Amino acid sequence: MSSSAATYARENHPRFLEELKTLLRIPSVSTLPENATDCRRAAELLVTELRRIGFDNVRLIETEGHPLVYADWLHATNKPTVLCYGHYDVQPADPLDEWNTPPFEPTERNGNIYARGAVDDKGQVWAQVKALESLLATKRALPLNVRVLFEGEEEVGGEGIAAFVASKSPLLQADFALVSDTELFAPGLPTLCVGLRGMIYTEIEVRGAKTDLHSGMYGGAAPNAFVSLAQILSRLKDEDGRILIPGFYDDIIPPSAAELAAWRSLPFDEEQYRIAEVGSKKLVGEPGYTVLERTWARPTLDVHGIPGGFIGAGAKTVIPAKAQAKVSMRLVPGMTPAKAFAQYKNFVQQIAPAGVDIEVRLIHSGAPCLIPVDNPYIQAATRALHEVWGRDTVFIRSGGSIPIVGDFAKHLNLPSVMMGFGLPDDNIHAPNEKFNLKNFELGIQSLIRFLEEVGS
Amino acid sequence: MSSSAATYARENHPRFLEELKTLLRIPSVSTLPENATDCRRAAELLVTELRRIGFDNVRLIETEGHPLVYADWLHATNKPTVLCYGHYDVQPADPLDEWNTPPFEPTERNGNIYARGAVDDKGQVWAQVKALESLLATKRALPLNVRVLFEGEEEVGGEGIAAFVASKSPLLQADFALVSDTELFAPGLPTLCVGLRGMIYTEIEVRGAKTDLHSGMYGGAAPNAFVSLAQILSRLKDEDGRILIPGFYDDIIPPSAAELAAWRSLPFDEEQYRIAEVGSKKLVGEPGYTVLERTWARPTLDVHGIPGGFIGAGAKTVIPAKAQAKVSMRLVPGMTPAKAFAQYKNFVQQIAPAGVDIEVRLIHSGAPCLIPVDNPYIQAATRALHEVWGRDTVFIRSGGSIPIVGDFAKHLNLPSVMMGFGLPDDNIHAPNEKFNLKNFELGIQSLIRFLEEVGS
Repeated sequence: MSSSAATYARENHPRFLEELKTLLRIPSVSTLPENATDCRRAAELLVTELRRIGFDNVRLIETEGHPLVYADWLHATNKPTVLCYGHYDVQPADPLDEWNTPPFEPTERNGNIYARGAVDDKGQVWAQVKALESLLATKRALPLNVRVLFEGEEEVGGEGIAAFVASKSPLLQADFALVSDTELFAPGLPTLCVGLRGMIYTEIEVRGAKTDLHSGMYGGAAPNAFVSLAQILSRLKDEDGRILIPGFYDDIIPPSAAELAAWRSLPFDEEQYRIAEVGSKKLVGEPGYTVLERTWARPTLDVHGIPGGFIGAGAKTVIPAKAQAKVSMRLVPGMTPAKAFAQYKNFVQQIAPAGVDIEVRLIHSGAPCLIPVDNPYIQAATRALHEVWGRDTVFIRSGGSIPIVGDFAKHLNLPSVMMGFGLPDDNIHAPNEKFNLKNFELGIQSLIRFLEEVGS
Repeated sequence: MSSSAATYARENHPRFLEELKTLLRIPSVSTLPENATDCRRAAELLVTELRRIGFDNVRLIETEGHPLVYADWLHATNKPTVLCYGHYDVQPADPLDEWNTPPFEPTERNGNIYARGAVDDKGQVWAQVKALESLLATKRALPLNVRVLFEGEEEVGGEGIAAFVASKSPLLQADFALVSDTELFAPGLPTLCVGLRGMIYTEIEVRGAKTDLHSGMYGGAAPNAFVSLAQILSRLKDEDGRILIPGFYDDIIPPSAAELAAWRSLPFDEEQYRIAEVGSKKLVGEPGYTVLERTWARPTLDVHGIPGGFIGAGAKTVIPAKAQAKVSMRLVPGMTPAKAFAQYKNFVQQIAPAGVDIEVRLIHSGAPCLIPVDNPYIQAATRALHEVWGRDTVFIRSGGSIPIVGDFAKHLNLPSVMMGFGLPDDNIHAPNEKFNLKNFELGIQSLIRFLEEVGS
């Protein structure tokens, strides 16, 4: 019962993979100014390809940052319209010396393709494009109306797409969004993500003395910005991982009893997760919650780096005048970025030690979101996935943040179908990021079947 | 009553200053591997100059790191022998953007010369060389026997000179050491430093997960190395600056009542010091001690930098697998580096949060020291300083560490005369380091008079 599009995709798979490698070779790291032209090259590659496979209105839409890629095909009268979303930008590749093969030289190994962006999100963007190509090439038409919107700033907060979505452009009129930036819960287990954490990403800056001072001469009298910063950071969370910001947990809407019961039946072993994925001596986190609850349905706070001071090799005996910390918090349904940031900022100023000046900055934020599972697009997706994978779909949440899903709901009133084909051990945002080759292939099949199902 | 050598020094002063600039232009940053040849160039410049002014046995002595410079003049029968010490290496110049003029382009401004190493320690090394030149050029002899030993690793722990001194080489037979690496307590106030803090410079490394992880996926369950490190650092000191390492204060020998009384009579205003030198909202430190006691006679602990993690511009949502901190402690008489490090290391391991692995490394160390003020060289120095400056000498301590002074005492049984001409606001180890030009000139005069006094 395989469609002609599905057959086309299988027959052309080797070419699809080579094309993906071309996209992966472009170091489109959105946070690094030196990679700005690479981001544009990645966008232009997508424009060229969307034109080639038969889309109309293909164009770059300029933003304050990296451009959006837009295209549409709107000839399916009386059919619904899907807005296909993905991102062509990637995280920085550092630390480079921990990659087994270079991050921008895609390499096949053990049934995977290794590269920065392999699964987050270029591989999934390419799966969408190749599903659309397969449908157009075999039927000369699509089973529904399609708009494509890819962005290049997902890893740096997505301000450009957020502004464009907030503008409610007519180019975005659709019935639902198809977001390909998530993962399967386990190999072979078809998965739809129906909840995402939000986030606030912040910087704390601490200033002590007016200039760097000699720690011999001044040590014992001059405030040390790093010591003060460590004191602040240590007061944000207790040792179990409970966040100490007053009121931070007050507005949380907990998962339903049914959702919690479904999570308990998922194939998940906390000890296995600790050993195979995290690799630490012990897991941390709030007592009384399972790992899935802690990562899907509870807020958290992480420190990403502490710039400033002396970080070279060897020794420098300086009392640094200032220190910074990059700190983010993940938010869950019920919480809002504005309120969470206000609570955090007030608390940091309250707990700051004497003798130093403090500044707390918001770098970017995104709201948490929950998708109702009874909408027709989610239902169509579960039918399509069952055909391709031969199993019932599991509904999960993700601890990550895809702020655009919240924006689609808020500004365009679009529900999102988050159908993604990554795996939990794909090392996204870390060295040796990979995409399973079988998942790339079945992902394309699933997307073809889903679009056919919605259009039928 | 000025000697012919003193007259010679005054007449040749403009040349002395130009020569110093040549030395200051060499970026002999000992901690940076890329400046290794610059360190050697600085040493070779000193060799050339010591030969030119009439020293014997002038040579480089190779070490594992940067070379020592040795020279002697031993023709003053039945006179004492002085071992002249200084260092030609300098601290790194970063942060470069805070310098008003480039660190290795010496610039005269407001009666000072600005450059990295101007006062710490190239200007003071050059004052010694020029005092010796003045004596040799006018009398064709020195009033006492002189050995010169300059090192190039003072800012990185001085391992080379420490090993050479520990070898008790016959080249080091002397009666006392003259160490020019300290400062006046206040402008115009002749000062001898008779006490130094010791130090231990360490690194703490914290390892959490086996690799960097995405903070969305894993935040709330995976240990965060930076959060754990902040917790450790925050537990090392209380908010007043009291070190919390058990037993750390047990062996301290406090200053005598007479020494404390002398310190109270020094021209020192804590509020003025806070505003003009430190520039912070508030001073920190142990309650119940004055600033001079806190910086001269109490141990302290500082954090210099926290390498690792994401420190670029923008945002990266990573849970770093490891974090490091550069932490040093200053030690006071009664304490030993070995015991202090053992206490510290045990404590860090004790207070480390669950879920992370900890490593504590000693980078380098030096013992604290105290010089008895009744020795004849200290007495001769006070007479010389009175003649040049017209005032009684004050005896102070320094919060800094000159490990070689402890080594001279321990291995060679040499008392040190620490006669230096820096000022408290010279910005050593910081941007805009300077040396007061009047102090450079009177420093040379003081050294000439002191050597004449000892030899008389």
